Amino acid sequence: MNIILLSGGSGKRLWPLSNDVRSKQFIKIFKTGEGVYSSMVQRVYQQIRSVDKDAVITIATAKSQVSSICNQLGSQVNICVEPLRKDTFPAIALACAYLHDVQGVPKEETVVVCPVDPFVETGYFEALKHLDALAESGTANLALMGIEPTYPSEKYGYILPENQETISRVKTFKEKPDKDLARDYIRQGALWNGGVFAFRLNYLLEKVHEQTGFADYAALLKNYASLPKISFDYAVAEKEERISVMRFCGPWKDLGTWNTLTEVMTEQVVGKGILNETCKNVHILNELDVPVLCMGLNNVVVSASPEGILVSDKEQSSYIKPFVDQFCQQIRFAEKSWGSFRVMDAGETSLTIKVTLNPGHRMNYHSHERRDEVWTIILGEGRAIIDGVWQDVFPGCVITVPAGCCHALLARTELQAIEVQTGKDIRIDDKKKYPFP
Amino acid sequence: MNIILLSGGSGKRLWPLSNDVRSKQFIKIFKTGEGVYSSMVQRVYQQIRSVDKDAVITIATAKSQVSSICNQLGSQVNICVEPLRKDTFPAIALACAYLHDVQGVPKEETVVVCPVDPFVETGYFEALKHLDALAESGTANLALMGIEPTYPSEKYGYILPENQETISRVKTFKEKPDKDLARDYIRQGALWNGGVFAFRLNYLLEKVHEQTGFADYAALLKNYASLPKISFDYAVAEKEERISVMRFCGPWKDLGTWNTLTEVMTEQVVGKGILNETCKNVHILNELDVPVLCMGLNNVVVSASPEGILVSDKEQSSYIKPFVDQFCQQIRFAEKSWGSFRVMDAGETSLTIKVTLNPGHRMNYHSHERRDEVWTIILGEGRAIIDGVWQDVFPGCVITVPAGCCHALLARTELQAIEVQTGKDIRIDDKKKYPFP
Repeated sequence: MNIILLSGGSGKRLWPLSNDVRSKQFIKIFKTGEGVYSSMVQRVYQQIRSVDKDAVITIATAKSQVSSICNQLGSQVNICVEPLRKDTFPAIALACAYLHDVQGVPKEETVVVCPVDPFVETGYFEALKHLDALAESGTANLALMGIEPTYPSEKYGYILPENQETISRVKTFKEKPDKDLARDYIRQGALWNGGVFAFRLNYLLEKVHEQTGFADYAALLKNYASLPKISFDYAVAEKEERISVMRFCGPWKDLGTWNTLTEVMTEQVVGKGILNETCKNVHILNELDVPVLCMGLNNVVVSASPEGILVSDKEQSSYIKPFVDQFCQQIRFAEKSWGSFRVMDAGETSLTIKVTLNPGHRMNYHSHERRDEVWTIILGEGRAIIDGVWQDVFPGCVITVPAGCCHALLARTELQAIEVQTGKDIRIDDKKKYPFP
Repeated sequence: MNIILLSGGSGKRLWPLSNDVRSKQFIKIFKTGEGVYSSMVQRVYQQIRSVDKDAVITIATAKSQVSSICNQLGSQVNICVEPLRKDTFPAIALACAYLHDVQGVPKEETVVVCPVDPFVETGYFEALKHLDALAESGTANLALMGIEPTYPSEKYGYILPENQETISRVKTFKEKPDKDLARDYIRQGALWNGGVFAFRLNYLLEKVHEQTGFADYAALLKNYASLPKISFDYAVAEKEERISVMRFCGPWKDLGTWNTLTEVMTEQVVGKGILNETCKNVHILNELDVPVLCMGLNNVVVSASPEGILVSDKEQSSYIKPFVDQFCQQIRFAEKSWGSFRVMDAGETSLTIKVTLNPGHRMNYHSHERRDEVWTIILGEGRAIIDGVWQDVFPGCVITVPAGCCHALLARTELQAIEVQTGKDIRIDDKKKYPFP
């Protein structure tokens, strides 16, 4: 199976665990062992591998997510990077061209496109194999998955099938309705549109050529800014006549809010936290290294990270976005391909950061124009390079990096350093990268 | 007026803003200007000065509170330090001997003893002057303040006066009752015992001599460990026959729990925080530099500090102690006489701290046996001394301090440094102090 996972989304709704560089799919909430948690991306990737160990998995995403994906899935994963954010049609177009031109997938092969973050069981991915076979069979140009609604949701688009069979032609699509209309659709046998499609690669590449004029990956990439900002539903699905929908009635959840996310948590407390005996339906997600104590609360989620602290009634948590928009502080935590960093103190003319490099990884060789930096190694072993000169580093080592000086750290074991930046104009974009000498 | 303020208490009930080295009286919650807050100690000290600018104020306390007191009240304040924690009788005995032997207060003068942390208006301190005058008048050996109860509290001891006059002889004392008994006492005209006493210095010093065999400050200090652990009520008040009580009916509150503390807060949010429009009777006290967002909460207090995060129903917050007892992490924030420190990261073999020195202050000249330290100056100007050698410091300066090396920082302006400690056995008690060379 060739599968394209669409990894999009901004991080407002699950603040403070998500932020502009960490979307919800990267939050580690699923317990996989003692003190070990995995994210939605990791869970989905694992689930696909468990139903099809040879699946060719490609993640279509923006540049801002590449570090997190490499950090969580390893650098071997195929990533098709959008130069900028458009909508699902350009993203799928680019990913399909990438599959053919870069990965060498023949045009006759089928492709399944699916969001990266559904909360599902492996049965869902078994169903994707059936959907793939449906596209393969040639009885339709486009095969969709329709999810049996469990309530009259206003959050999803609906697909009206012609009949109630497992596989049916699509009669029509309906936009997100209000509750009454949703009830009406459901009475008519409508299904939720979960954004899952299967088709032959050449089918889609022809559509792309028709609509954009571009036929290959290089051209699409180069001209990406000029592509229309349009969804796959509008650009392709709603115009297609030979289109079928396959009914899926297993568990499926979209974990977009704290309310839905906490419903699927297997533990009430992730991280350091205590709920007293009078707490009911309370969840703690704490990424700080100090404890959270909850007493006498009902239906509340408490979430703490280096970005801030949310304490919300679960129902209310879906209205979080405008409040988070007010916070304009810099990012305090980010996963990088080489590890992670955490801002510990931000002054007007200084910034103190804890840098963690994963074993065998290295940061880019880079310099800053307007700040000096000091590294003090606190854990592990590795090497530092300063203006072309290598040195071994270990706990207690101090490395001073004046402005203009090229520098990088390499980790032999896990390596942690406290980085103190000083300067009058400390900015994240004051960074020049160089090849390692 | 000679006044002894008893400053005791541990920090469990107002966790995480209080801890083992910061009792509740040092938490800054009373707004005194734009972004400026004062603590209960500062408020009481100010109130006393406003009713009696010449008052001789002495704070009787434990060693662990001296730094906070000096930090908040300045180093000019008189402090009588107990060598170890006993009960109110030994503490008052030592403080009275200190007043006479160290401060030179004549034995014929009167003294008022009062807790350091009542939440009151200045009328309370005017009343103390009347109490002082009552002791001065000689109509009784001991004058107490009795507070008009506003509800049948189980938290306070009660004083039963002989009559309902403003000043009356004391009939008897009653221990903390249950609610029914409290109602019964109140029907009999009982008053709360707020722990306020006035007497002539020689009266108390004689009692001390009788009960301990010691007559002066030096002897009491030297033999403090052998003094009985007994309250002033048991040791003196309940045995005294010539004892009067003065009725006080102004506002008086004991801010011992989050519930009572938040009742007197003039603002709902102290620190960075947002309450959405569906929050009712919610208070945020946030000492972190990231925001707290509360949504859809009722009767909840959220308190965040470098020690941890409390989210509690206000009623429930009074049951906090056993939960806080479970947390056995090291102190994360402390005020020192010279400024403050905050732990930012604690590893097994490293500790990263932000050190802030107030202008004109300096830390002790000291060394550590089992850890190396690195200071990176991030703000301000001052000097460092390392093994007897002075150097100027400013932002960006790095000072390495190997184990065994004597070191200190002096602040000309406010001075901030990031201190990274590395070593296999980092302990707070690994510290030797030396005189400055």
